[in-house]
Amino acid sequence: MLTMEEAQMLLTQKVEEIIQTEKVSLFDALGRKLAEDIIAVRDQPPFPRSPLDGYALRGEDTTGASHDTPVTLKVIGKVYAGSVYEGTVKKGEAVRLMTGAPIPDGADTVIRQEDTDLGGDTVSVYRELRPYQNYCYQGEDYQAGSILVKKGRTLHAGIITVIASLGKTEVEVFKRPRIALLSTGDEVLLPEAEWKPGKIYDTNRAYIGSRLMELQNPPVFSEHISDEGSVVAEEIRRIAPVTDLIITTGGVSVGEKDIMHEVVDILGAKQLFWKVRVKPGSPTLAFIWEGTLVLCLSGNPFGAIANFELLGRPVLYALTGQEKWKLRTQQAKLQNDFIKPAGGRRFLRGWLEDGKVYLNGKNQASGAILAMADCNCLIEITPDMAGAKAGECVQVYML
Amino acid sequence: MLTMEEAQMLLTQKVEEIIQTEKVSLFDALGRKLAEDIIAVRDQPPFPRSPLDGYALRGEDTTGASHDTPVTLKVIGKVYAGSVYEGTVKKGEAVRLMTGAPIPDGADTVIRQEDTDLGGDTVSVYRELRPYQNYCYQGEDYQAGSILVKKGRTLHAGIITVIASLGKTEVEVFKRPRIALLSTGDEVLLPEAEWKPGKIYDTNRAYIGSRLMELQNPPVFSEHISDEGSVVAEEIRRIAPVTDLIITTGGVSVGEKDIMHEVVDILGAKQLFWKVRVKPGSPTLAFIWEGTLVLCLSGNPFGAIANFELLGRPVLYALTGQEKWKLRTQQAKLQNDFIKPAGGRRFLRGWLEDGKVYLNGKNQASGAILAMADCNCLIEITPDMAGAKAGECVQVYML
Repeated sequence: MLTMEEAQMLLTQKVEEIIQTEKVSLFDALGRKLAEDIIAVRDQPPFPRSPLDGYALRGEDTTGASHDTPVTLKVIGKVYAGSVYEGTVKKGEAVRLMTGAPIPDGADTVIRQEDTDLGGDTVSVYRELRPYQNYCYQGEDYQAGSILVKKGRTLHAGIITVIASLGKTEVEVFKRPRIALLSTGDEVLLPEAEWKPGKIYDTNRAYIGSRLMELQNPPVFSEHISDEGSVVAEEIRRIAPVTDLIITTGGVSVGEKDIMHEVVDILGAKQLFWKVRVKPGSPTLAFIWEGTLVLCLSGNPFGAIANFELLGRPVLYALTGQEKWKLRTQQAKLQNDFIKPAGGRRFLRGWLEDGKVYLNGKNQASGAILAMADCNCLIEITPDMAGAKAGECVQVYML
Repeated sequence: MLTMEEAQMLLTQKVEEIIQTEKVSLFDALGRKLAEDIIAVRDQPPFPRSPLDGYALRGEDTTGASHDTPVTLKVIGKVYAGSVYEGTVKKGEAVRLMTGAPIPDGADTVIRQEDTDLGGDTVSVYRELRPYQNYCYQGEDYQAGSILVKKGRTLHAGIITVIASLGKTEVEVFKRPRIALLSTGDEVLLPEAEWKPGKIYDTNRAYIGSRLMELQNPPVFSEHISDEGSVVAEEIRRIAPVTDLIITTGGVSVGEKDIMHEVVDILGAKQLFWKVRVKPGSPTLAFIWEGTLVLCLSGNPFGAIANFELLGRPVLYALTGQEKWKLRTQQAKLQNDFIKPAGGRRFLRGWLEDGKVYLNGKNQASGAILAMADCNCLIEITPDMAGAKAGECVQVYML
């Protein structure tokens, strides 16, 4: 039987990072991966800019200015942010201007209005200024032609802001992996369907579908399918050409209804592996059909959940190269005992907060669902731990 | 002038947590705040369930069974997951069943098929089992009538899964705060508009709008508005009745075009404060009009960004009670020098990774935009620091 790490390696070797791109509107690009270098089309600021409200003037005109010995200049015009003063400021002249306005030609500094008599036709200046004091140079933030954001970055609000500063409203991003989700099992009811004895509602698609949405990659297909090998095989034939990864749940164990083995045979697919040395969900199966990876998880709720996180996410990481899919682990101090012998490598549902991890007090059985309500990480119990005691340091895998 | 904490307190006291609710579809509820207790309508599992593939039987029938002394039972039926065996298992009898199938009446345990001869009309059992071994009790995960998830929780994939286990497809959540975003400034161009001298593109709505989207609360209005006090006042009159918070950018300083003071006068609104002792963006203004809080940020890009995070997010937290809006701070070791004297409490753009925080090498001026591309936190420089040196421990505010 493979270790989890061996299974991860086999899976991730079988997929390639997606190189197809598409243009999307800027706000839709949040969380997506940038597929172009963002290049400045002009300088920023696009002109020498006033950082404050006051008067643009020539620094040399202020020599010796103080409150007691003010220098008086002729006010030749006024300019607000968004406008341009077309003339040139000469010796003995000043232009009234507001924060964000372009500094007119000839002027090399701006005195803030608090250091003047506020002015009118003339303005009295109470302070000496050096040239280029209070002066935002054209291009001091970035220069035309420079690369502002490199291809490959994941777009967050800050990067969106930089792109918006160019006036762009669309951006080229890498396409998202196309993921299909198929739940199997004749005991599984569709949501809202009338409950009948022997039946349970579909939770596996709810979990994996929500996780894909949380990580901004909603599934392109999400369906429940009957427990017939031929039907499942036909569906995989139909959707494989337009998906990058198919995740199924159920039918992977050794019972008569464990149809995924039959599916592999019907398709004549290449099995990558069957069974991974972890609990829950050890009978995970993986195969390739016509180049598309099919990851078949246990139908047991926590088996499907844990192995989507432990085996599915690394595949998504390989497909996208985006950090958000990477498994993040950390050490944490366990706050409760787990008395059941591990009997192999086992994952439990936990809640991590401030470096402490609480073993979810709920039923931890792989068929149990309620424990998911208070689960933000998986706690790893290794075979040598023979259970786990409060105070022990454990490795947790963040959801 | 107020401290940041005083401003936060004044702002958050003026809003109340939203109590209106709405029904949304389950997947749309991700990240929303639950407005109902989720109560189990039936037991889970809804029936005693087989945890494995094998035979349901009476434990007492297996007394003394071993590989050498097997016990042979009559197979009276077969049941798959999703079906129900209607009869009762009596002494000497067994029912073939698959994982997830209901355990028939009369049977009190399930032997896994690997511990049998696989069976046919009869089955030979190679192991002793105690009653209720390999037996998932009805309701062992949760019982009908119990509260599974309490009102007030933020819905994550695990909670969605628990709700899906009830067959529900809709859920009652608290309404999201209705946030309006108004950028002002005649120098501001709309996206895609032709660039003209003296103009810059709107980045403030890009940042705050993206952050609201990242935090799953897109603005209900987002517009650019002209630098006319009467126009801005009219727009606030129009939208205030249908918004919980209005955020404006620009027009808050002391220049002639700093129209937000005029807006307060025109509206006859109650000013909460003007100016906060932080850099950048100190001239932040806040007022209440007809019960709606209006937070007016500096138009300088980093002034608007920093104060949206430091003052706007706490208001969103007060409106929602959701942790995702809470300012999260941590201590980190600064990796570069910041030589400019702080001259008061100042925030810089930084990148936090593994407990180390890198001062963004880009231009940190409040008008500079590019530094946002590599910013995932704000670094606080306190007045007593007189700059900051590599190796110093600083407080960072996570974006």
